[in-house]
Parts: sequence; C-alpha cells; structure tokens
Amino acid sequence: MIAKRLRKSLDEAISIRDIFEEGKKMADIYGAENIFNFTIGNPSVAPPAIVNETFHEMLDTVPAKELHGYPANVGHPDVRSHIADVLNKEYGGKYTTEGVVMTTGAAAAIVEICHTLLDMDDEAVTFAPYFWEYKSYVGTVYGKLVPAQCNMETLQPDPETFEAALSERTRFVLINTPNNPTGAVYTEDSIIKVTDILKRKEKEYGHPIYLVSDEPYRALAYDIEVPWIPDYYRNTIVVYSYSKALSLPGERIGWLAMQPDVEDYKDLLAGITASIRYLGYVNAPSLQQKIMLKCAGEKVDISIYKKTRDILYDGLTKIGYTCIHPDGAFYLFMKALEDDDFRFCQVAKEEKILMAPGTAFYGPGWVRISYCVPSEVAEASLPAFEWLYKKYTDK
Amino acid sequence: MIAKRLRKSLDEAISIRDIFEEGKKMADIYGAENIFNFTIGNPSVAPPAIVNETFHEMLDTVPAKELHGYPANVGHPDVRSHIADVLNKEYGGKYTTEGVVMTTGAAAAIVEICHTLLDMDDEAVTFAPYFWEYKSYVGTVYGKLVPAQCNMETLQPDPETFEAALSERTRFVLINTPNNPTGAVYTEDSIIKVTDILKRKEKEYGHPIYLVSDEPYRALAYDIEVPWIPDYYRNTIVVYSYSKALSLPGERIGWLAMQPDVEDYKDLLAGITASIRYLGYVNAPSLQQKIMLKCAGEKVDISIYKKTRDILYDGLTKIGYTCIHPDGAFYLFMKALEDDDFRFCQVAKEEKILMAPGTAFYGPGWVRISYCVPSEVAEASLPAFEWLYKKYTDK
Repeated sequence: MIAKRLRKSLDEAISIRDIFEEGKKMADIYGAENIFNFTIGNPSVAPPAIVNETFHEMLDTVPAKELHGYPANVGHPDVRSHIADVLNKEYGGKYTTEGVVMTTGAAAAIVEICHTLLDMDDEAVTFAPYFWEYKSYVGTVYGKLVPAQCNMETLQPDPETFEAALSERTRFVLINTPNNPTGAVYTEDSIIKVTDILKRKEKEYGHPIYLVSDEPYRALAYDIEVPWIPDYYRNTIVVYSYSKALSLPGERIGWLAMQPDVEDYKDLLAGITASIRYLGYVNAPSLQQKIMLKCAGEKVDISIYKKTRDILYDGLTKIGYTCIHPDGAFYLFMKALEDDDFRFCQVAKEEKILMAPGTAFYGPGWVRISYCVPSEVAEASLPAFEWLYKKYTDK
Repeated sequence: MIAKRLRKSLDEAISIRDIFEEGKKMADIYGAENIFNFTIGNPSVAPPAIVNETFHEMLDTVPAKELHGYPANVGHPDVRSHIADVLNKEYGGKYTTEGVVMTTGAAAAIVEICHTLLDMDDEAVTFAPYFWEYKSYVGTVYGKLVPAQCNMETLQPDPETFEAALSERTRFVLINTPNNPTGAVYTEDSIIKVTDILKRKEKEYGHPIYLVSDEPYRALAYDIEVPWIPDYYRNTIVVYSYSKALSLPGERIGWLAMQPDVEDYKDLLAGITASIRYLGYVNAPSLQQKIMLKCAGEKVDISIYKKTRDILYDGLTKIGYTCIHPDGAFYLFMKALEDDDFRFCQVAKEEKILMAPGTAFYGPGWVRISYCVPSEVAEASLPAFEWLYKKYTDK
C-alpha cells in the first residue's frame, strides 16, 4: 500500500543499501576490528572541546522558553546575525541576518531549496559523480536531476558536458566541493568555466539559474584553498552543515545563506520560509542553533583525516591502484580493477575490505573509500589491498 | 522565480500570516504587557526539571560519537526500545523497538507518512476544524486533503460527513485529539463511530485505510480520559511530539509508532525509513532523542493551563459568549459575534485582543483563543472581552 513512486525507488536502491547492511553483518561475524570498513561517512574525529562546554553553558544560562521554545521558522536572530558576521569576516561578503536561514542540516536545506524552486518536471543539474541522495531530494517534489559527468581522469567538471546538461527548465545547479564521493576540490579554473557558462545561459534563457553550493566538507580541505563560490557567481546560495566541521552529524544543524543581491532575494526567502513549514521542519533544533553562538567558526582537528588520507593514497598508489589525489572531505575515489565496480566490491569483501561501488554515485568503474576510520585501520588494510591487487594482476 | 505551486499557496496564506505579524507589531507599539495576545501556540509552562538535568547528564556520560554521530535513520535503538516499553506499560500494547521511529517532531512524522502513502492526487481525510498546516503537508507530495466538517455544535466528528469524505483514493485519515484549534477531546463514542465506518470502508475498497493519530496534546487533557486510538482500530499509526508534553517545541523531537499487526507493517517501515532520507531529515536530532531515555514518560505541570482555561471559559461564557468547553490542549474555540470571523478579529484588536480567525482552521464563524499565556493575562483580558461583547450587543 505504499506509494508507487516510492516502491519503485526502494526496489532500485536495494543493492546500494545492501552494501551498508553487509558491513554490519560482517562486523558481527568477524568482529568489527577484523574488517576494513570503508563504507561509512560517520566522522571519527571528536568534536572540539568547546562544543560540549557550550551545550552545558547554554543549558545553564539561556531561559528555557528562549532555549527550547519555538524560534522563528528561519531560526534565532542572534545566531543568524553571528553567522552573517563570521561569513563577512571570512569572505568579505555582504551577508545580513535576514539572508542566513538556520536549517536542520544541509540535506534539509537542499530539499527546502528544491521545494522552493521546482515545479513538477523542472530540472536541477549536478556534477557526477555525486552524493546519491541528491536524486531523491529532487524527486521528492517531482523534479528531475540531470547529471553532468565530470572528466573522469581529473574528477573536475567538464564544461562541454555541463553546458549540454542545461536547459530552459534548469532552475538550479547543485555543486559539491570538496566532493562526496570523490574527495576532489573543484579548482578555481573549473569554477570560472562553470560560472561563465551559467552567466551566458541566464542571459540566453532570460531567467536566473541559481548555483546551490553544498559545502559540508569545506572545513575538511588539506593544504588547498577551496574557492568561495559567491565570489564568482552572484546567484549563489551557500548550504552549510556542521556535521563534518564539528563532527555533529546526528544533531542536524546547518544553514543556507545568500547575499541581498541574489535575484528575487525576498521571494526566495519567503519561499524557503514556507518550505521549512510545509515540509514539516518548523525550525532547526533550537539548542543546536544556540551553541553556534560560540562554535560557528570552530572546526575539528583535520590533521587526523589528513594522516589517514596520506597512508591510503601513498599505500594504494604504491601497490599500483589508480587514485585521484583527494584534496578534501574524507573520501578517496579509486579505479576498480574491473569494469563492474559492484563485482569488484564483492571480490574485495573476500579480503574483508568494504567499499562503496562508484555506480551508486554515478561514477561507474570506480569505488569510494571513506577514510574517516582510525589511521591504524588504514595502515592495517594495505596488505589486504595488496592481496586484492594480486588477485587481478596474477590472473 | 519560485515554484508556481508555492507562489499560489503563499499568496493564499498571506492573510493568516498577517495575524501573527500583527501581534508582534502591536507588542512593539503598546508594549507586550498591554495587549492580550491569544494567537500564539508557544507553551508558557516550563519544562520539568528532569529535562535540563538529563541534557547535562547525557552530555557528561555518553561518548561523543554515540551522542552526536549518525544514529540509524529511524533513531537510537535504546531510545526506541524504551519508548516501546513506556507505551506497552501505559496502554498494554504490543510495540517493539522496530515499530517505534524517532522523528523530528510530529510535523515531520506526518510529512513522512504523506510521502510514504500518497501518490499524486491520492487523498487524506481530516476532521475540520483542523491545524492549517495539514493541507500543506499533504500538498507537498501533490496529495489532496479532504476535510470532513465536525458537528459545529459539539466539535465532535460527524459520521455522515466523514463517510461522504472517504473515497477509493483515501490512503489515510488524520485525526487530532485533543484538537488544535478547538481544544475538543473526541469522545469514545466518536472514535467508535469513525472506526466502524473505516472498517466497513476498508472491506468495501479492499485496501487498508490507515488512521494517523496526531497526538501532541495527549498529555494536556483536563479531568478526562483521551481514548487510545489503537484500541479501536488495528491500522493506526500514532504520531507523538514532546513539544507540548515537555514544553520543547523548538527542539523538534517526537516519534511515530505502529504495532506489528498493522497491515503492510514491514513495507510501511521501509517506506518511512526511505522518506526520512528523501525528505532530508536523515534522523531526529540525536541529543534530543537520548534525553528521552529518562524523560519519555514525564510531562509539564498542566494545572497551570487548566487554571487559565477555567478563568477564560467561565469568564467568557458569563459575559455571554458561546464557547465549547475545551477538555484538552491549550485552545478554546469561541463563536464570533458576527459571521465574518476575520472582521470580528479586526474589531477585537481595537480592544487589544488578538485571536486567530476560525476560517484559517476551516472553522468559519469561530475564533481560536490560544490560552498558553500567564493566567493573569487571561484574567486581565476579561474586561476587554466584555467591552467587545457590548460593542456588538449594544448596536
């Protein structure tokens, strides 16, 4: 009796979900310490100490009605004002309290934007490989997600493919850098090419095409500058989450922000405010909002992720695997040793290595290695990866 | 550039939102203490002390990765198991961990159910007057909300109108008792009549019609038993929120629960789990889930609401107003003194009384008085209500 639309997507999704279930099952059989589970995106680095301190402080000092009562749908004004200040200081922007909307994580912000911008069959374009839930977010409001395949040698956006993916019905482009699943940070050159095309297409179509920049991994970039998209494109909506920056993914807290010169600014804000209500969000969790008065500019110790990345990247390339050097997030994209990445993942399981097949992310022929694991696990997995490699090359 | 669908609903909704904005404006002009604002549904009674204590305790004792990391989409198993126990103890049910799903408040649960059950143009029926957001929740997934008007003398469901509202396309019925906006608690007789019709219609149509019982006000009932819907109807999904029971509306924490004998139980759970992801919720805020290990069975001191209700109900009926005695929630439904309830609310404003027009809730000719205000405010408002009454009767 469940909706036909949903039934269809559940049946399609089954093979992907299986992989995650498999990790739990194998942990039960062999013990979690005896398998190399690279499928999980749950941050392993502890939140900065100030997070716990601030939770306690807010619970001790803010009156219950202010702390736990209904804030405005768009969030507490003091928190939004503080985040606008943080953004303006960091990027020299023109953000105001009004243009910062607190959201129940980045996923919520994206669905709210879909609900605000898409009528039935309207389109959003994203660069593939991409986080698989994007398709569901757009589909929830009967929109259509159009993928623009990246150059699979560099994992950077490909201008020609991108331009071909745009149409009169494109309402927004969803960009995610540092990227899940590839770990790529899109270069300034890529951003300039993408935004130049968008500016041209906006003129051609005579309506805005928003650039929605999904940035949960911005704080996780290693020795590299992540271009700040609003510097390149006026109609940018930045979507942020503290899930990775503060290791708080279970707390569902983030924001979306736009500067006052974004086209149809007031309408967009009204639409997003209504979407927060219509989708049942009501407001981002109030206590989690309040801690951002002290924690908005903080981040976890990313040197731990960097160390694990180096162990894996160096180790895997030394064995002979083809990997694109990941400059951000905690994902490494590696070429499978056969065309069928699902089968490659199955074979890897025999060595107790669990990875997510690239096909799940619209990146067939590759696999995603999520390295938010203790660095000792990464180190210990290398002999298993070597066995796996030999299995294919000794054939 | 916002979606046409949304633009239409924003334009329709403008007059209702104006009323809430008006409250803020009048508070700025006259001072909040000089107006009688009965439009707000923000609980005024403090959370029980154990809530704050438990927040501190969880922050001190649960490891950060368990407390702040990703739980399963459906929530922490220990919390769900505890809530199942609480329900089974209270109502003698057969709830299991699997059948309890933690949600980002009751609103989220309802949208998740809509997303799970409704294909385009499928129908949900609810009893009018009803909480206005219901229409938006159903509309978000392109479903249709069909109102069944209550008997407006008793504010109880009317069996004939209800039966006429059902159709082959009815996927679920949304029931809300104690009710927002009327404060009515649907009697056992009402529930039996409604569920008897549903059982007959399920047979006639050959498919389940779920009864979704939205119960955020269950803990706020005064000297009256609120019938437990699953006792009367097998295919019941109970939706709960701690917003009012614990005065935590800003924290967005609740659950939905169904017993294993609900038809298509496994499919429903799979659909709801997917909907939590597709709608961008991911999971209910983790910290708020965890405090329910200690607070799930607690509730605020409702004697404060009861006192305010008595002051208003006795005072208003003594003046001459027609009110239905409200047995639950913190709302009192009062007959407007003219047919046009919008205009009646405008006239009331001249006496500094702010109320929400019944038309906003599909209850034309009535007004909603939200009495989650200090009882002194209720007391002080009575002379103003008397002036208002005289304005109409002295004409």
